[in-house]
Amino acid sequence: MSDIPHMEQLIARQQVSDALPAALSQELRALMGERMSIARAVREHHGTDISSYPVTPPDAVVFPHSTEEVTAIVKACVRHRVPMIPFGVGTSVEGNVLALHGGVCIDLGQMNRVLEVNVADLDAKVQAGVTRKQLNSYMHDSGLFFPIDPGADATLGGMASTRASGTNAVRYGTMRENVMGLTVVLADGRVIRTGGRARKSAAGYDLTRLFVGAEGTLGIITELFVRLYAIPESMSAAVCAFPTVNDAVTSVIEAIQNGIPIARVELLDALTVSAVNRYSKLQLRESPTLWYEFHGTARGVEEQATQMQEIAKGHGGLDFDWTTRPEDRSRLWQARHDAYFANLQLRPGSRMVATDVCVPISRLAECIAETQKDIDKSSIPMPMFGHVGDGNFHLMILVDPASSTDFEEAWQLNERLVRRALAMGGTCTGEHGVGLGKREFLVEEFGEGVEVMRSIKRALDPDGLLNPGKVL
Amino acid sequence: MSDIPHMEQLIARQQVSDALPAALSQELRALMGERMSIARAVREHHGTDISSYPVTPPDAVVFPHSTEEVTAIVKACVRHRVPMIPFGVGTSVEGNVLALHGGVCIDLGQMNRVLEVNVADLDAKVQAGVTRKQLNSYMHDSGLFFPIDPGADATLGGMASTRASGTNAVRYGTMRENVMGLTVVLADGRVIRTGGRARKSAAGYDLTRLFVGAEGTLGIITELFVRLYAIPESMSAAVCAFPTVNDAVTSVIEAIQNGIPIARVELLDALTVSAVNRYSKLQLRESPTLWYEFHGTARGVEEQATQMQEIAKGHGGLDFDWTTRPEDRSRLWQARHDAYFANLQLRPGSRMVATDVCVPISRLAECIAETQKDIDKSSIPMPMFGHVGDGNFHLMILVDPASSTDFEEAWQLNERLVRRALAMGGTCTGEHGVGLGKREFLVEEFGEGVEVMRSIKRALDPDGLLNPGKVL
Repeated sequence: MSDIPHMEQLIARQQVSDALPAALSQELRALMGERMSIARAVREHHGTDISSYPVTPPDAVVFPHSTEEVTAIVKACVRHRVPMIPFGVGTSVEGNVLALHGGVCIDLGQMNRVLEVNVADLDAKVQAGVTRKQLNSYMHDSGLFFPIDPGADATLGGMASTRASGTNAVRYGTMRENVMGLTVVLADGRVIRTGGRARKSAAGYDLTRLFVGAEGTLGIITELFVRLYAIPESMSAAVCAFPTVNDAVTSVIEAIQNGIPIARVELLDALTVSAVNRYSKLQLRESPTLWYEFHGTARGVEEQATQMQEIAKGHGGLDFDWTTRPEDRSRLWQARHDAYFANLQLRPGSRMVATDVCVPISRLAECIAETQKDIDKSSIPMPMFGHVGDGNFHLMILVDPASSTDFEEAWQLNERLVRRALAMGGTCTGEHGVGLGKREFLVEEFGEGVEVMRSIKRALDPDGLLNPGKVL
Repeated sequence: MSDIPHMEQLIARQQVSDALPAALSQELRALMGERMSIARAVREHHGTDISSYPVTPPDAVVFPHSTEEVTAIVKACVRHRVPMIPFGVGTSVEGNVLALHGGVCIDLGQMNRVLEVNVADLDAKVQAGVTRKQLNSYMHDSGLFFPIDPGADATLGGMASTRASGTNAVRYGTMRENVMGLTVVLADGRVIRTGGRARKSAAGYDLTRLFVGAEGTLGIITELFVRLYAIPESMSAAVCAFPTVNDAVTSVIEAIQNGIPIARVELLDALTVSAVNRYSKLQLRESPTLWYEFHGTARGVEEQATQMQEIAKGHGGLDFDWTTRPEDRSRLWQARHDAYFANLQLRPGSRMVATDVCVPISRLAECIAETQKDIDKSSIPMPMFGHVGDGNFHLMILVDPASSTDFEEAWQLNERLVRRALAMGGTCTGEHGVGLGKREFLVEEFGEGVEVMRSIKRALDPDGLLNPGKVL
């Protein structure tokens, strides 16, 4: 692997001034009218995510309003053998939406209608462009919520495509567990419906789970059925500092083994806590710290917090502070939610290379400890936080965009970290997806299994027009 | 659809005296020695499940001990283009293991080693022939358990292949949620490893979920990583009778909407309760009855039971009886577990045609009420019970094996029931799988989606040698 994967390819792509075949351009204009754009600013926006890859714009962007319009766009692109890239809000982290081979970006952001909320069944049907916050505010008075929270206010279609998760996964699962069914436009324009509203089904191959996490390379998700949950009667939040990361992680393992149904448990390292203190004007002890949230009945959450506190004490936990008052909970968690922006301020003007390994939780402390040695050797600031209940953690490697040695060092560190995680039975990506940056690691992780993925790709997209260059 | 699906095909198959190509027979004998059988009794046992289909034996049965042996068997069969059928313990319900085109049955029952139990990570690695009871007794002192309970003591490989679930699914999910990774021998003998031990991963296509529920038509599962759970500190059980099925179901919807984390909630109709009374010598009120189980802390389960009792009362619930004492819990639940055998005694000598629809829970009462009209018109006894928290219920249609009109009536009733469930947004099979009996319904349920399933089948098994004639 080159030190900065695909950088030459990306830079080469930027220097080419592609354009769509004129006939396709006309067809798309006829279909979409003003909802097709070839403006430079629009194209550049759609060739960008929050990774540190250079902007890699598509040749045109279209904004469909319906599955039927997506079908028509796909059929037109296929006739001209032009690549298609589905796009949500562009908050992916692995270059997942970059137009590596040009083509048409299909921005589903205007397909943002909540189609059904079925309170009795705890499910909702949405268009792919609905964001998670939009869905939750739509349901404001229903007593229900959608729990998956990857941080960014991403679209549900995008979250499904990257198999996103975030802070609530330890209790509520990931998009894998919470997408019940899909409407998908295939590479040849056929439309299928997968899964459904039944809570379980043994009916045939699990196509829903095949498209969840396929990053738009097998089909374009236009609608989703998702699971909802009753807002718990009571929630409590807590923070607790620990002498070491190992103490913090060990306490979480013990809690999970004891069956404490923690809803969230997030680890921030000392550097991130110090960044948060500065950013959010707090006075937290600058030590590895766990953020907890408990969901249940009033007595239940009290019981959970008490048990957790005892376990934390046994591992040197300090200043265990817990609350059930909504405003205090929000204040506590706001600090956690600010961690991303707080960390960026550690090196103003920097860009982020994010790591995303996930390991069996019994190996997490060891994985972090070994990684800490790499961090200590580096001059680049790289705060760490993690969804510790799942074994998933991120380094935010804050590179100077003008420094190619920074990038090289970041990529080398990431490569070492991924190999360490794989050797521990883990995965190269817990929740960001493969995109551009993890393709070689996917082969290291699954070997021959990647050939099976390729067979499926060929079966469903024989011309390789759907988000080409991603995942495989 | 013919009234008795595939019956002619099955009967025709029984009348053919197939034999393996002599060269394949020799190869398998050389590979397996005494662990290959062509004895009639062995073949007939492997051509049988608990459905009402006629015995449809394979031409030979082999009993491998390792993934390597399965690979060698598959390669030999492929060279001779002979079908292969993976087999667990033969408790499937839809003819899933019947040797419709003859061939070699690969019985994985001797691959029954528990390979790892990782207490800290709450996961286990097992060979495909390990049964759920075997795994749970192996872990007896670990404080952990594997929750999926389809009734029968099936193998975990078989349960994965049919995407099984059962009574615990409302709290713990199905095999879909609880298989973390697989070792699979493909149709050409390649071996792949899917998924892994990380709690979550966004790494590429979800091959694990593709093989879970594929009923052995895409590959042969030889090993599994499964999730485990901490045995709850406390469990309580309850039963409660209701005036009508509608009252019972409505109370469950209300409980779920209120976020009560019921671990199990099972509905038995009045006929099943009367069968259970006779079989288990009980004096339960012969009325639609819910069986509940609650898992949590001592205070938590008390709280859950109290809340549930209040909700049940609001829907006419009678004789709410609950207990946390293990022996009383076992006694209560034994009656539920006996329902299958108790129901068979309603018509001694009968065979069962089992229905398996699953609908959104808001439609469950209506679906059962409409079905009740069909039941009332019939002279065949057909007790009903269901995993009501999931919207999944079964009729055990007790047919006289000598009566073709019984079978015809049963299939017609099943067909009407499936169409009713599909019209309500449900599925033709909640947990039994497609097998032989639901293939046409799969097309009704997914339309073009079935063509996508066929594309995947062709990509992974181009010669159609893996469990041919099933699912698609």
